[in-house]
Amino acid sequence: MARYCFIVSYDGTNYYGFQIQNALPTIELELNKAFQSLLNKDVKLYAAGRTDRFVHAVGQVFHTDLDIDIPVEGLKKGLNSFLPPDIYIKECKKVDEAFHARFSAVLKEYRYYINTKDYNPITAHYLPFIPNLNEEEMIKGSSYLLGKHDFKAYASAQIDSRKSTIKTIKSIEIRKHDDYLEFIFIGDGFLKYQIRRMMGMLIEVGKGRFSADYIKELLESRNPAASKYIADGCGLYLYKVYYDVPL
Amino acid sequence: MARYCFIVSYDGTNYYGFQIQNALPTIELELNKAFQSLLNKDVKLYAAGRTDRFVHAVGQVFHTDLDIDIPVEGLKKGLNSFLPPDIYIKECKKVDEAFHARFSAVLKEYRYYINTKDYNPITAHYLPFIPNLNEEEMIKGSSYLLGKHDFKAYASAQIDSRKSTIKTIKSIEIRKHDDYLEFIFIGDGFLKYQIRRMMGMLIEVGKGRFSADYIKELLESRNPAASKYIADGCGLYLYKVYYDVPL
Repeated sequence: MARYCFIVSYDGTNYYGFQIQNALPTIELELNKAFQSLLNKDVKLYAAGRTDRFVHAVGQVFHTDLDIDIPVEGLKKGLNSFLPPDIYIKECKKVDEAFHARFSAVLKEYRYYINTKDYNPITAHYLPFIPNLNEEEMIKGSSYLLGKHDFKAYASAQIDSRKSTIKTIKSIEIRKHDDYLEFIFIGDGFLKYQIRRMMGMLIEVGKGRFSADYIKELLESRNPAASKYIADGCGLYLYKVYYDVPL
Repeated sequence: MARYCFIVSYDGTNYYGFQIQNALPTIELELNKAFQSLLNKDVKLYAAGRTDRFVHAVGQVFHTDLDIDIPVEGLKKGLNSFLPPDIYIKECKKVDEAFHARFSAVLKEYRYYINTKDYNPITAHYLPFIPNLNEEEMIKGSSYLLGKHDFKAYASAQIDSRKSTIKTIKSIEIRKHDDYLEFIFIGDGFLKYQIRRMMGMLIEVGKGRFSADYIKELLESRNPAASKYIADGCGLYLYKVYYDVPL
Protein backbone atom coordinates (compact mmCIF):
# COMPACT_ATOMS: atom_id res chain seq x y z
CA MET A 1 0.00 0.00 0.00
CA ALA A 2 1.38 3.38 -0.95
CA ARG A 3 -0.01 6.88 -0.93
CA TYR A 4 0.18 8.89 -4.15
CA CYS A 5 -0.34 12.63 -4.40
CA PHE A 6 -1.36 14.42 -7.60
CA ILE A 7 -1.49 18.02 -8.81
CA VAL A 8 -4.25 18.43 -11.36
CA SER A 9 -5.26 21.37 -13.56
CA TYR A 10 -8.62 21.63 -15.26
CA ASP A 11 -10.88 23.83 -17.29
CA GLY A 12 -14.12 23.84 -15.29
CA THR A 13 -16.28 25.13 -18.16
CA ASN A 14 -17.93 21.82 -18.96
CA TYR A 15 -18.15 20.38 -15.44
CA TYR A 16 -20.49 20.51 -12.48
CA GLY A 17 -17.58 21.10 -10.14
CA PHE A 18 -15.00 18.77 -8.67
CA GLN A 19 -17.10 16.53 -6.47
CA ILE A 20 -18.81 13.49 -7.89
CA GLN A 21 -22.60 13.79 -8.34
CA ASN A 22 -23.74 10.48 -9.74
CA ALA A 23 -23.37 10.53 -13.52
CA LEU A 24 -23.17 14.31 -13.95
CA PRO A 25 -19.93 15.43 -15.60
CA THR A 26 -17.56 16.24 -12.75
CA ILE A 27 -13.79 16.30 -12.43
CA GLU A 28 -13.82 13.54 -9.82
CA LEU A 29 -15.90 11.29 -12.08
CA GLU A 30 -13.41 11.74 -14.93
CA LEU A 31 -10.51 11.00 -12.58
CA ASN A 32 -12.26 7.91 -11.25
CA LYS A 33 -12.89 6.70 -14.80
CA ALA A 34 -9.23 7.24 -15.69
CA PHE A 35 -8.06 5.20 -12.66
CA GLN A 36 -10.60 2.53 -13.57
CA SER A 37 -9.35 2.42 -17.18
CA LEU A 38 -5.67 2.39 -16.27
CA LEU A 39 -5.63 0.18 -13.18
CA ASN A 40 -9.02 -1.53 -13.28
CA LYS A 41 -9.57 -0.24 -9.76
CA ASP A 42 -12.16 1.89 -8.02
CA VAL A 43 -10.14 4.37 -6.04
CA LYS A 44 -11.20 6.86 -3.41
CA LEU A 45 -9.78 10.33 -4.03
CA TYR A 46 -9.17 12.91 -1.31
CA ALA A 47 -8.98 16.42 -2.72
CA ALA A 48 -7.55 19.53 -1.04
CA GLY A 49 -10.85 21.29 -1.63
CA ARG A 50 -13.93 21.20 -3.76
CA THR A 51 -14.44 23.56 -6.62
CA ASP A 52 -17.89 24.68 -7.78
CA ARG A 53 -19.43 24.42 -11.21
CA PHE A 54 -17.43 26.35 -13.90
CA VAL A 55 -14.52 26.97 -11.47
CA HIS A 56 -11.07 26.17 -12.88
CA ALA A 57 -7.96 24.79 -11.23
CA VAL A 58 -4.34 25.49 -11.98
CA GLY A 59 -3.14 23.41 -9.03
CA GLN A 60 -5.80 21.31 -7.33
CA VAL A 61 -4.24 18.54 -5.19
CA PHE A 62 -5.60 15.10 -4.32
CA HIS A 63 -4.23 11.89 -2.91
CA THR A 64 -5.20 8.26 -3.05
CA ASP A 65 -3.91 4.96 -1.71
CA LEU A 66 -2.97 2.22 -4.13
CA ASP A 67 -2.10 -1.35 -3.25
CA ILE A 68 0.32 -1.56 -6.15
CA ASP A 69 3.69 0.00 -6.66
CA ILE A 70 3.89 1.97 -9.91
CA PRO A 71 6.48 4.42 -11.21
CA VAL A 72 4.97 7.86 -10.78
CA GLU A 73 5.86 9.08 -14.28
CA GLY A 74 4.03 6.11 -15.78
CA LEU A 75 1.05 6.69 -13.53
CA LYS A 76 0.90 10.34 -14.60
CA LYS A 77 1.20 9.57 -18.31
CA GLY A 78 -1.21 6.66 -18.12
CA LEU A 79 -3.90 8.65 -16.34
CA ASN A 80 -3.48 11.62 -18.68
CA SER A 81 -3.92 9.32 -21.67
CA PHE A 82 -7.39 8.43 -20.35
CA LEU A 83 -8.39 11.93 -19.24
CA PRO A 84 -10.19 14.37 -21.55
CA PRO A 85 -8.13 17.32 -22.88
CA ASP A 86 -9.60 19.72 -20.31
CA ILE A 87 -8.22 17.79 -17.31
CA TYR A 88 -4.48 17.26 -16.91
CA ILE A 89 -2.37 15.73 -14.16
CA LYS A 90 0.70 17.94 -13.87
CA GLU A 91 2.50 16.07 -11.10
CA CYS A 92 2.37 12.72 -9.40
CA LYS A 93 4.51 11.63 -6.49
CA LYS A 94 4.59 9.15 -3.67
CA VAL A 95 4.03 10.69 -0.26
CA ASP A 96 4.26 9.62 3.33
CA GLU A 97 1.15 8.03 4.81
CA ALA A 98 0.86 10.99 7.17
CA PHE A 99 0.19 13.25 4.19
CA HIS A 100 -3.43 14.15 3.51
CA ALA A 101 -4.32 16.41 0.57
CA ARG A 102 -6.96 18.21 2.60
CA PHE A 103 -5.82 18.04 6.22
CA SER A 104 -2.11 18.63 5.56
CA ALA A 105 -2.79 21.76 3.49
CA VAL A 106 -1.49 24.81 5.33
CA LEU A 107 -2.50 27.50 2.85
CA LYS A 108 -4.61 27.76 -0.26
CA GLU A 109 -4.31 30.28 -3.04
CA TYR A 110 -7.28 31.25 -5.18
CA ARG A 111 -7.23 33.78 -7.99
CA TYR A 112 -10.12 35.64 -9.56
CA TYR A 113 -9.94 37.32 -12.95
CA ILE A 114 -12.18 40.06 -14.37
CA ASN A 115 -12.08 41.31 -17.94
CA THR A 116 -12.47 45.06 -17.51
CA LYS A 117 -11.93 46.29 -21.08
CA ASP A 118 -14.33 45.00 -23.77
CA TYR A 119 -16.55 41.96 -23.90
CA ASN A 120 -14.48 39.14 -25.37
CA PRO A 121 -16.32 36.01 -26.55
CA ILE A 122 -13.05 34.04 -26.65
CA THR A 123 -12.29 34.52 -22.94
CA ALA A 124 -15.88 34.73 -21.68
CA HIS A 125 -15.67 31.42 -19.80
CA TYR A 126 -12.40 32.43 -18.14
CA LEU A 127 -12.68 36.09 -17.17
CA PRO A 128 -16.19 37.47 -16.67
CA PHE A 129 -16.61 40.90 -18.26
CA ILE A 130 -17.32 43.71 -15.78
CA PRO A 131 -16.38 47.20 -17.01
CA ASN A 132 -16.12 50.52 -15.21
CA LEU A 133 -15.03 49.25 -11.82
CA ASN A 134 -13.68 51.64 -9.24
CA GLU A 135 -10.50 49.73 -8.50
CA GLU A 136 -9.38 51.92 -5.60
CA GLU A 137 -12.63 51.31 -3.73
CA MET A 138 -12.28 47.57 -4.35
CA ILE A 139 -8.73 47.63 -2.95
CA LYS A 140 -9.95 49.53 0.09
CA GLY A 141 -12.87 47.13 0.57
CA SER A 142 -10.62 44.09 0.28
CA SER A 143 -8.34 45.40 3.03
CA TYR A 144 -11.08 44.77 5.61
CA LEU A 145 -11.11 41.08 4.74
CA LEU A 146 -7.44 40.59 5.47
CA GLY A 147 -6.51 38.72 8.66
CA LYS A 148 -8.37 36.46 11.07
CA HIS A 149 -12.13 36.97 11.10
CA ASP A 150 -15.41 35.17 11.54
CA PHE A 151 -16.48 35.02 7.89
CA LYS A 152 -20.02 33.82 8.62
CA ALA A 153 -21.50 36.70 6.63
CA TYR A 154 -19.51 35.59 3.57
CA ALA A 155 -20.26 31.88 3.92
CA SER A 156 -22.84 29.75 2.18
CA ALA A 157 -26.29 29.70 3.74
CA GLN A 158 -26.08 25.88 3.86
CA ILE A 159 -22.93 25.83 5.98
CA ASP A 160 -22.75 23.27 8.79
CA SER A 161 -23.49 25.29 11.94
CA ARG A 162 -21.19 23.09 14.05
CA LYS A 163 -18.19 24.10 11.94
CA SER A 164 -16.13 27.13 12.75
CA THR A 165 -16.48 30.02 10.36
CA ILE A 166 -13.28 31.63 11.61
CA LYS A 167 -10.60 31.74 8.95
CA THR A 168 -7.43 33.71 8.35
CA ILE A 169 -6.68 35.44 5.05
CA LYS A 170 -2.92 35.89 4.96
CA SER A 171 -2.76 38.10 1.92
CA ILE A 172 -4.94 39.76 -0.69
CA GLU A 173 -3.28 41.24 -3.72
CA ILE A 174 -5.06 43.06 -6.55
CA ARG A 175 -3.04 43.40 -9.73
CA LYS A 176 -4.17 45.87 -12.36
CA HIS A 177 -3.35 44.73 -15.89
CA ASP A 178 -4.09 46.59 -19.12
CA ASP A 179 -7.40 44.90 -19.76
CA TYR A 180 -8.07 42.74 -16.74
CA LEU A 181 -7.93 42.65 -12.95
CA GLU A 182 -6.32 39.81 -11.03
CA PHE A 183 -7.25 39.11 -7.39
CA ILE A 184 -4.96 36.82 -5.38
CA PHE A 185 -6.26 35.43 -2.10
CA ILE A 186 -4.04 33.32 0.15
CA GLY A 187 -5.51 31.92 3.34
CA ASP A 188 -5.48 28.97 5.69
CA GLY A 189 -8.79 27.85 4.26
CA PHE A 190 -11.96 29.25 2.76
CA LEU A 191 -15.61 28.48 3.49
CA LYS A 192 -17.97 27.22 0.82
CA TYR A 193 -18.68 30.13 -1.58
CA GLN A 194 -16.52 32.46 0.56
CA ILE A 195 -14.31 33.72 -2.26
CA ARG A 196 -17.23 34.10 -4.66
CA ARG A 197 -19.25 35.98 -2.01
CA MET A 198 -16.32 38.23 -1.10
CA MET A 199 -15.69 38.87 -4.81
CA GLY A 200 -19.41 39.43 -5.38
CA MET A 201 -19.48 42.18 -2.76
CA LEU A 202 -16.17 43.66 -3.95
CA ILE A 203 -17.62 43.86 -7.48
CA GLU A 204 -20.70 45.68 -6.15
CA VAL A 205 -18.38 48.08 -4.35
CA GLY A 206 -16.45 48.52 -7.61
CA LYS A 207 -19.72 49.34 -9.37
CA GLY A 208 -20.50 51.96 -6.74
CA ARG A 209 -23.55 50.17 -5.34
CA PHE A 210 -21.98 50.00 -1.86
CA SER A 211 -19.17 51.85 -0.16
CA ALA A 212 -15.94 50.03 0.67
CA ASP A 213 -16.88 50.32 4.34
CA TYR A 214 -19.91 48.14 3.74
CA ILE A 215 -17.53 45.17 3.30
CA LYS A 216 -16.44 45.70 6.90
CA GLU A 217 -19.96 46.31 8.17
CA LEU A 218 -21.16 43.04 6.65
CA LEU A 219 -18.16 41.14 8.01
CA GLU A 220 -18.81 42.43 11.51
CA SER A 221 -22.52 41.63 11.31
CA ARG A 222 -21.74 37.89 11.25
CA ASN A 223 -25.22 37.38 9.81
CA PRO A 224 -25.13 34.04 8.02
CA ALA A 225 -24.77 34.52 4.26
CA ALA A 226 -25.51 38.24 4.57
CA SER A 227 -23.49 38.94 1.43
CA LYS A 228 -26.04 38.37 -1.29
CA TYR A 229 -23.86 38.74 -4.37
CA ILE A 230 -22.06 35.64 -5.63
CA ALA A 231 -19.49 36.28 -8.34
CA ASP A 232 -19.54 33.99 -11.40
CA GLY A 233 -17.69 30.72 -10.88
CA CYS A 234 -15.94 30.98 -14.25
CA GLY A 235 -13.61 33.75 -13.03
CA LEU A 236 -12.30 31.67 -10.12
CA TYR A 237 -9.18 29.50 -10.13
CA LEU A 238 -7.90 27.19 -7.38
CA TYR A 239 -4.36 28.27 -8.05
CA LYS A 240 -2.16 26.47 -5.55
CA VAL A 241 -2.27 24.43 -2.35
CA TYR A 242 0.62 24.87 0.04
CA TYR A 243 1.97 22.10 2.29
CA ASP A 244 4.80 21.88 4.78
CA VAL A 245 6.39 19.24 2.58
CA PRO A 246 7.46 20.19 -0.94
CA LEU A 247 5.22 18.67 -3.64
CA MET B 1 -31.95 49.93 -48.63
CA ALA B 2 -28.73 50.43 -46.73
CA ARG B 3 -25.55 48.41 -46.39
CA TYR B 4 -24.34 47.58 -42.89
CA CYS B 5 -20.89 46.29 -42.03
CA PHE B 6 -20.07 44.34 -38.87
CA ILE B 7 -16.92 43.29 -37.04
CA VAL B 8 -17.54 40.04 -35.18
CA SER B 9 -15.38 38.08 -32.73
CA TYR B 10 -16.01 34.46 -31.85
CA ASP B 11 -14.70 31.45 -30.01
CA GLY B 12 -14.70 28.73 -32.67
CA THR B 13 -14.45 25.84 -30.19
CA ASN B 14 -18.06 24.75 -30.47
CA TYR B 15 -18.64 25.51 -34.16
CA TYR B 16 -18.16 23.81 -37.51
CA GLY B 17 -16.62 26.97 -38.92
CA PHE B 18 -18.14 30.18 -40.19
CA GLN B 19 -20.08 29.03 -43.22
CA ILE B 20 -23.59 27.70 -42.87
CA GLN B 21 -23.96 23.91 -43.27
CA ASN B 22 -27.65 23.19 -42.86
CA ALA B 23 -28.43 22.80 -39.17
CA LEU B 24 -24.86 22.16 -37.96
CA PRO B 25 -23.71 24.73 -35.42
CA THR B 26 -21.90 27.41 -37.41
CA ILE B 27 -21.22 31.09 -36.81
CA GLU B 28 -23.26 32.10 -39.86
CA LEU B 29 -26.26 30.09 -38.63
CA GLU B 30 -26.14 31.84 -35.26
CA LEU B 31 -25.87 35.24 -36.96
CA ASN B 32 -28.80 34.41 -39.24
CA LYS B 33 -30.87 33.36 -36.25
CA ALA B 34 -30.02 36.60 -34.43
CA PHE B 35 -31.10 38.69 -37.45
CA GLN B 36 -34.25 36.60 -37.70
CA SER B 37 -35.03 37.11 -34.01
CA LEU B 38 -34.30 40.83 -34.00
CA LEU B 39 -35.70 41.92 -37.38
CA ASN B 40 -37.87 38.99 -38.41
CA LYS B 41 -35.88 38.89 -41.64
CA ASP B 42 -33.81 36.32 -43.48
CA VAL B 43 -30.66 38.17 -44.41
CA LYS B 44 -27.80 37.17 -46.67
CA LEU B 45 -24.40 37.74 -45.07
CA TYR B 46 -21.18 38.35 -47.01
CA ALA B 47 -18.10 37.58 -44.91
CA ALA B 48 -14.52 38.68 -45.55
CA GLY B 49 -13.45 35.06 -45.41
CA ARG B 50 -14.49 31.69 -44.13
CA THR B 51 -12.97 30.18 -41.06
CA ASP B 52 -12.67 26.42 -40.54
CA ARG B 53 -13.95 24.32 -37.69
CA PHE B 54 -12.44 25.34 -34.29
CA VAL B 55 -10.84 28.48 -35.78
CA HIS B 56 -11.45 31.67 -33.79
CA ALA B 57 -11.94 35.26 -34.91
CA VAL B 58 -10.91 38.47 -33.21
CA GLY B 59 -12.04 40.61 -36.13
CA GLN B 60 -14.05 38.79 -38.79
CA VAL B 61 -15.97 41.23 -41.01
CA PHE B 62 -19.26 40.76 -42.84
CA HIS B 63 -21.82 43.01 -44.51
CA THR B 64 -25.48 42.75 -45.33
CA ASP B 65 -28.15 44.89 -46.94
CA LEU B 66 -31.21 45.83 -44.95
CA ASP B 67 -34.33 47.53 -46.31
CA ILE B 68 -34.85 49.33 -43.02
CA ASP B 69 -32.99 52.17 -41.44
CA ILE B 70 -31.83 51.33 -37.90
CA PRO B 71 -29.39 53.11 -35.59
CA VAL B 72 -26.20 51.07 -35.67
CA GLU B 73 -25.74 51.01 -31.89
CA GLY B 74 -29.20 49.53 -31.47
CA LEU B 75 -28.55 46.99 -34.20
CA LYS B 76 -25.30 45.93 -32.49
CA LYS B 77 -26.87 45.65 -29.05
CA GLY B 78 -29.97 43.93 -30.36
CA LEU B 79 -28.04 41.30 -32.30
CA ASN B 80 -25.68 40.67 -29.37
CA SER B 81 -28.65 40.11 -27.10
CA PHE B 82 -29.71 37.20 -29.35
CA LEU B 83 -26.23 35.79 -29.93
CA PRO B 84 -24.68 33.12 -27.67
CA PRO B 85 -21.86 34.29 -25.34
CA ASP B 86 -19.17 32.90 -27.65
CA ILE B 87 -20.11 35.19 -30.56
CA TYR B 88 -19.99 38.96 -30.17
CA ILE B 89 -20.51 41.82 -32.60
CA LYS B 90 -17.86 44.42 -31.72
CA GLU B 91 -18.74 47.04 -34.30
CA CYS B 92 -21.58 47.90 -36.61
CA LYS B 93 -21.63 50.75 -39.10
CA LYS B 94 -23.35 51.87 -42.26
CA VAL B 95 -21.14 51.70 -45.32
CA ASP B 96 -21.28 52.82 -48.90
CA GLU B 97 -22.92 50.44 -51.36
CA ALA B 98 -19.57 50.03 -53.07
CA PHE B 99 -18.20 48.37 -49.95
CA HIS B 100 -18.01 44.57 -49.98
CA ALA B 101 -16.67 42.70 -46.95
CA ARG B 102 -14.84 40.22 -49.16
CA PHE B 103 -13.98 42.05 -52.36
CA SER B 104 -13.03 45.36 -50.74
CA ALA B 105 -10.61 43.71 -48.31
CA VAL B 106 -7.05 44.73 -49.14
CA LEU B 107 -5.21 42.75 -46.47
CA LYS B 108 -6.00 40.07 -43.96
CA GLU B 109 -4.19 39.31 -40.75
CA TYR B 110 -4.20 35.85 -39.22
CA ARG B 111 -2.43 34.85 -36.03
CA TYR B 112 -1.43 31.40 -34.85
CA TYR B 113 -0.58 30.58 -31.25
CA ILE B 114 1.38 27.62 -29.89
CA ASN B 115 1.77 26.78 -26.21
CA THR B 116 5.42 25.75 -25.97
CA LYS B 117 5.86 25.35 -22.22
CA ASP B 118 3.63 22.77 -20.46
CA TYR B 119 0.36 21.21 -21.48
CA ASN B 120 -2.39 23.46 -20.15
CA PRO B 121 -5.94 22.06 -20.07
CA ILE B 122 -7.38 25.56 -19.59
CA THR B 123 -5.96 26.93 -22.86
CA ALA B 124 -5.98 23.68 -24.85
CA HIS B 125 -8.70 24.89 -27.25
CA TYR B 126 -6.86 28.16 -27.86
CA LEU B 127 -3.15 27.36 -28.11
CA PRO B 128 -2.22 23.82 -29.14
CA PHE B 129 0.63 22.44 -27.06
CA ILE B 130 3.81 21.70 -29.02
CA PRO B 131 7.02 21.66 -26.95
CA ASN B 132 10.68 21.62 -27.94
CA LEU B 133 10.40 23.58 -31.17
CA ASN B 134 13.51 24.93 -32.84
CA GLU B 135 12.31 28.49 -33.18
CA GLU B 136 15.25 29.72 -35.24
CA GLU B 137 14.63 27.08 -37.90
CA MET B 138 10.96 28.03 -37.96
CA ILE B 139 11.85 31.69 -38.44
CA LYS B 140 14.21 30.75 -41.25
CA GLY B 141 11.60 28.53 -42.87
CA SER B 142 8.94 31.21 -42.66
CA SER B 143 11.16 33.69 -44.48
CA TYR B 144 10.78 31.68 -47.72
CA LEU B 145 7.03 32.21 -47.63
CA LEU B 146 7.27 35.98 -47.54
CA GLY B 147 6.37 37.86 -50.72
CA LYS B 148 4.49 37.00 -53.90
CA HIS B 149 4.39 33.28 -54.69
CA ASP B 150 2.31 30.58 -56.25
CA PHE B 151 1.14 28.85 -53.06
CA LYS B 152 -0.37 25.84 -54.82
CA ALA B 153 1.72 23.45 -52.70
CA TYR B 154 0.22 24.99 -49.55
CA ALA B 155 -3.36 25.06 -50.79
CA SER B 156 -6.21 22.66 -50.15
CA ALA B 157 -6.43 19.67 -52.47
CA GLN B 158 -10.01 20.66 -53.26
CA ILE B 159 -9.11 24.09 -54.56
CA ASP B 160 -10.87 25.34 -57.69
CA SER B 161 -8.31 24.87 -60.46
CA ARG B 162 -9.60 27.92 -62.34
CA LYS B 163 -8.65 30.17 -59.46
CA SER B 164 -5.24 31.71 -59.15
CA THR B 165 -3.06 30.32 -56.39
CA ILE B 166 -0.76 33.33 -56.52
CA LYS B 167 -0.88 35.36 -53.33
CA THR B 168 1.32 37.90 -51.62
CA ILE B 169 2.33 37.63 -47.99
CA LYS B 170 3.29 41.13 -46.93
CA SER B 171 4.73 40.25 -43.54
CA ILE B 172 5.38 37.32 -41.26
CA GLU B 173 6.34 38.04 -37.69
CA ILE B 174 7.16 35.41 -35.07
CA ARG B 175 7.02 36.65 -31.50
CA LYS B 176 8.61 34.57 -28.78
CA HIS B 177 6.81 34.89 -25.45
CA ASP B 178 7.73 33.18 -22.18
CA ASP B 179 5.47 30.21 -22.69
CA TYR B 180 4.01 30.57 -26.15
CA LEU B 181 4.84 31.47 -29.73
CA GLU B 182 2.79 33.95 -31.75
CA PHE B 183 2.83 33.91 -35.55
CA ILE B 184 1.45 36.96 -37.38
CA PHE B 185 0.69 36.63 -41.09
CA ILE B 186 -0.48 39.61 -43.11
CA GLY B 187 -1.29 39.11 -46.77
CA ASP B 188 -3.57 40.17 -49.59
CA GLY B 189 -5.47 36.93 -49.23
CA PHE B 190 -4.94 33.31 -48.26
CA LEU B 191 -6.05 30.10 -49.97
CA LYS B 192 -8.22 27.55 -48.23
CA TYR B 193 -6.10 25.84 -45.54
CA GLN B 194 -3.03 27.87 -46.60
CA ILE B 195 -2.16 29.19 -43.16
CA ARG B 196 -2.79 25.84 -41.49
CA ARG B 197 -0.67 24.05 -44.11
CA MET B 198 2.14 26.61 -43.84
CA MET B 199 1.97 26.36 -40.04
CA GLY B 200 1.84 22.56 -40.27
CA MET B 201 5.08 22.47 -42.22
CA LEU B 202 6.71 25.12 -40.01
CA ILE B 203 5.86 23.01 -36.97
CA GLU B 204 7.46 19.94 -38.60
CA VAL B 205 10.54 22.07 -39.30
CA GLY B 206 10.47 23.18 -35.66
CA LYS B 207 10.37 19.55 -34.57
CA GLY B 208 13.38 18.82 -36.77
CA ARG B 209 11.55 16.49 -39.16
CA PHE B 210 12.43 18.71 -42.12
CA SER B 211 15.01 21.41 -42.72
CA ALA B 212 13.95 25.03 -43.10
CA ASP B 213 14.94 24.79 -46.76
CA TYR B 214 12.26 22.19 -47.34
CA ILE B 215 9.66 24.96 -46.94
CA LYS B 216 11.18 26.61 -50.01
CA GLU B 217 11.53 23.36 -51.92
CA LEU B 218 7.86 22.54 -51.40
CA LEU B 219 6.80 26.07 -52.36
CA GLU B 220 8.76 25.88 -55.60
CA SER B 221 7.39 22.44 -56.44
CA ARG B 222 3.91 23.91 -56.93
CA ASN B 223 2.56 20.39 -56.47
CA PRO B 224 -1.05 20.77 -55.43
CA ALA B 225 -1.43 20.28 -51.67
CA ALA B 226 2.11 18.90 -51.40
CA SER B 227 2.35 20.09 -47.78
CA LYS B 228 0.77 17.21 -45.92
CA TYR B 229 0.73 18.62 -42.40
CA ILE B 230 -2.26 20.71 -41.39
CA ALA B 231 -1.91 22.52 -38.07
CA ASP B 232 -4.83 22.32 -35.64
CA GLY B 233 -7.58 24.83 -36.34
CA CYS B 234 -7.87 25.80 -32.67
CA GLY B 235 -4.57 27.74 -32.74
CA LEU B 236 -5.70 29.97 -35.61
CA TYR B 237 -7.34 33.39 -35.30
CA LEU B 238 -8.71 35.60 -38.07
CA TYR B 239 -7.31 38.67 -36.39
CA LYS B 240 -8.13 41.63 -38.60
CA VAL B 241 -9.34 42.54 -42.08
CA TYR B 242 -7.95 45.71 -43.59
CA TYR B 243 -9.87 47.99 -45.97
CA ASP B 244 -9.10 51.25 -47.73
CA VAL B 245 -11.91 52.83 -45.76
CA PRO B 246 -11.66 52.99 -41.97
CA LEU B 247 -14.06 50.62 -40.23
